[in-house]
Amino acid sequence: MQTATTSKLLLGPGPCNASPSVLEALSRPLVGHMDPEFFDVMESTKSLLRKVFQTENKVTFPVSGTGSSGMEFLLVNFLEPGDTLVVGVNGVFGGRIASLSEKLGANVIRVEQEWGRAVDVEIFNQAIREHRPKIAALVNGETSTGVYQNVDGIAAVCRESDTLFFIDCVTSLAGMPVSIDEWGVDVAFSGTQKCLGVPPGLAPVTISDRALEVYRKRSRPTPSFYFDLDAILAYVDGDGGRSYHHTAPISMAFALETALQEIVDEGLEARWARHADAAAYLREQLGAFGFAPVVPEGERLNPLTTLHLPEGFDEAKVRGALLKDHDIEVGAGLGPLAGKIWRIGLMASNASRDSVDTLIGALKDYL
Amino acid sequence: MQTATTSKLLLGPGPCNASPSVLEALSRPLVGHMDPEFFDVMESTKSLLRKVFQTENKVTFPVSGTGSSGMEFLLVNFLEPGDTLVVGVNGVFGGRIASLSEKLGANVIRVEQEWGRAVDVEIFNQAIREHRPKIAALVNGETSTGVYQNVDGIAAVCRESDTLFFIDCVTSLAGMPVSIDEWGVDVAFSGTQKCLGVPPGLAPVTISDRALEVYRKRSRPTPSFYFDLDAILAYVDGDGGRSYHHTAPISMAFALETALQEIVDEGLEARWARHADAAAYLREQLGAFGFAPVVPEGERLNPLTTLHLPEGFDEAKVRGALLKDHDIEVGAGLGPLAGKIWRIGLMASNASRDSVDTLIGALKDYL
Repeated sequence: MQTATTSKLLLGPGPCNASPSVLEALSRPLVGHMDPEFFDVMESTKSLLRKVFQTENKVTFPVSGTGSSGMEFLLVNFLEPGDTLVVGVNGVFGGRIASLSEKLGANVIRVEQEWGRAVDVEIFNQAIREHRPKIAALVNGETSTGVYQNVDGIAAVCRESDTLFFIDCVTSLAGMPVSIDEWGVDVAFSGTQKCLGVPPGLAPVTISDRALEVYRKRSRPTPSFYFDLDAILAYVDGDGGRSYHHTAPISMAFALETALQEIVDEGLEARWARHADAAAYLREQLGAFGFAPVVPEGERLNPLTTLHLPEGFDEAKVRGALLKDHDIEVGAGLGPLAGKIWRIGLMASNASRDSVDTLIGALKDYL
Repeated sequence: MQTATTSKLLLGPGPCNASPSVLEALSRPLVGHMDPEFFDVMESTKSLLRKVFQTENKVTFPVSGTGSSGMEFLLVNFLEPGDTLVVGVNGVFGGRIASLSEKLGANVIRVEQEWGRAVDVEIFNQAIREHRPKIAALVNGETSTGVYQNVDGIAAVCRESDTLFFIDCVTSLAGMPVSIDEWGVDVAFSGTQKCLGVPPGLAPVTISDRALEVYRKRSRPTPSFYFDLDAILAYVDGDGGRSYHHTAPISMAFALETALQEIVDEGLEARWARHADAAAYLREQLGAFGFAPVVPEGERLNPLTTLHLPEGFDEAKVRGALLKDHDIEVGAGLGPLAGKIWRIGLMASNASRDSVDTLIGALKDYL
């Protein structure tokens, strides 16, 4: 029996709802993955991704896996056993960068910060100066806590220390400023199911020329076939002809291209402003019912707001009822914040006051 | 500018065309990946996959990447540095298993065979007896050559040698017999874009209890986050509650569930017979124009037929014209067979005499 699905308003940490044109793109007839028509889709997608990442990096494309595969793709290509990585850990996703890097044999220096606060840039820079790591990694949008990480002044310290600057912008890209070239970021990854407004399944990445040079100096081949950078580049860039590496997720590529075009048509600044307005409205409206922001002003991630719950609020029960009776999803806390907070996503087409009004309308029965 | 796509008949090595109901499933409204409704889709998909793999293996699910990610997922979890792997190499895909295993630090024994022929089971078994490897790997459907590998009698030798029996059934699953339990296969992977009739993007895998025991005895953790078996199982199986690992490609999961239901409704034997009939008709029809099978009878992969070209036939020109002027894709040769053969796929809904007639109708202009 095929499982039915109903239409829901997805206000959790992702996926969010995809726009009608993105859903329509998913159902377009397939073409071959070595068809020039598909190469056009790939080239158009890469070009649009550069605009959204705000970069001139030639190597900018979607990895054929979900957001987490973007993290693994970058670390497995840029880290070798014995390399040092400095990483800011103030939530689940910084912790993941640390633990995968350890699995890959790296020497990992964690710059810990209380969950719900941004990493202190001065302390982080000090760790870079002290350890001169191969990679310094920060999570630009911490999906587990709702923190947006300021990165000002880090790239300069990275350059002094021959360090590659790495960011996770899964939940920030296209919802808040992400400016790869201006920030001096060398490698970054994202996912499609947040502010890009596409179903999960692809991980956009971008790699600077400086990082490529470091990659070329690896002492041994990348210990992966699926994530091997050179083999993937021969397929997705193919200067002088494309070589088969894997079969790209064609329907997902159609959807991503469509969504990126919508983003560029809206304009990045207008889109960031829309996410900021929706988030401010959400905080104000829910504030009246006793929901208090987890994150202090100035460090908040607009696409994903985290809120402490009102006294005596049965969060699991209400969250379940919202989903079951009102077809509205909101997100629970993760790790040490499980049961203590809600994570409410207002991403892509859901970043609107209408989404907030719909949520409040349903929530009023339980407050 | 969004790239337009036209409707094409995809008779290459994959993707093939997806059925209308599969394309429709892709465009269904999204649900959250931790929504009980999505867990139902996942459970239904796993149950249907067991039927199609013909296995009782509890651990049977789609890995969140394309077919190649299924290979990597299995090798990175089941091989450790210093382990021995015996692999049959008679085309591109056996070669990939060998080279990734070497990257992972394994001692690799290649049982080489001429491209276009099946690996000799006696020689393969002899290599298992001699080397007593941790894994013995064969490609059940060699997409680069059109060979279907007989696996009779291998499992018994694997059991005597404490060896896990590994198969790549990317191009055979749901198009020719694949019988995991009857064959005594321990680990297998496939891809969605061949005889399952789904766009590329997921890699169905199945793992026997015997293989799970071997995995539990690893001396160190799997050197991957994205492919970490235990972490993925806590998400896709979730006995006693599911833990977030990554965000599953939800739309692709909808499509896979729909396609698997169509396969089970058709019946595996009827589906294999349909693929066999279409392939026989293709060989007969194209034989009349001087296309000669690469692979001897008894070793042919019905979903993908490989053919030597008629004398003086400009394969690249005709292949290009078929695609450009007739919207029909056929596949070129790979590696040493590039320029020398065609690979014609009749997979999933394309496995019909109608597909062959359409191809012949277009091809007649060039013969």
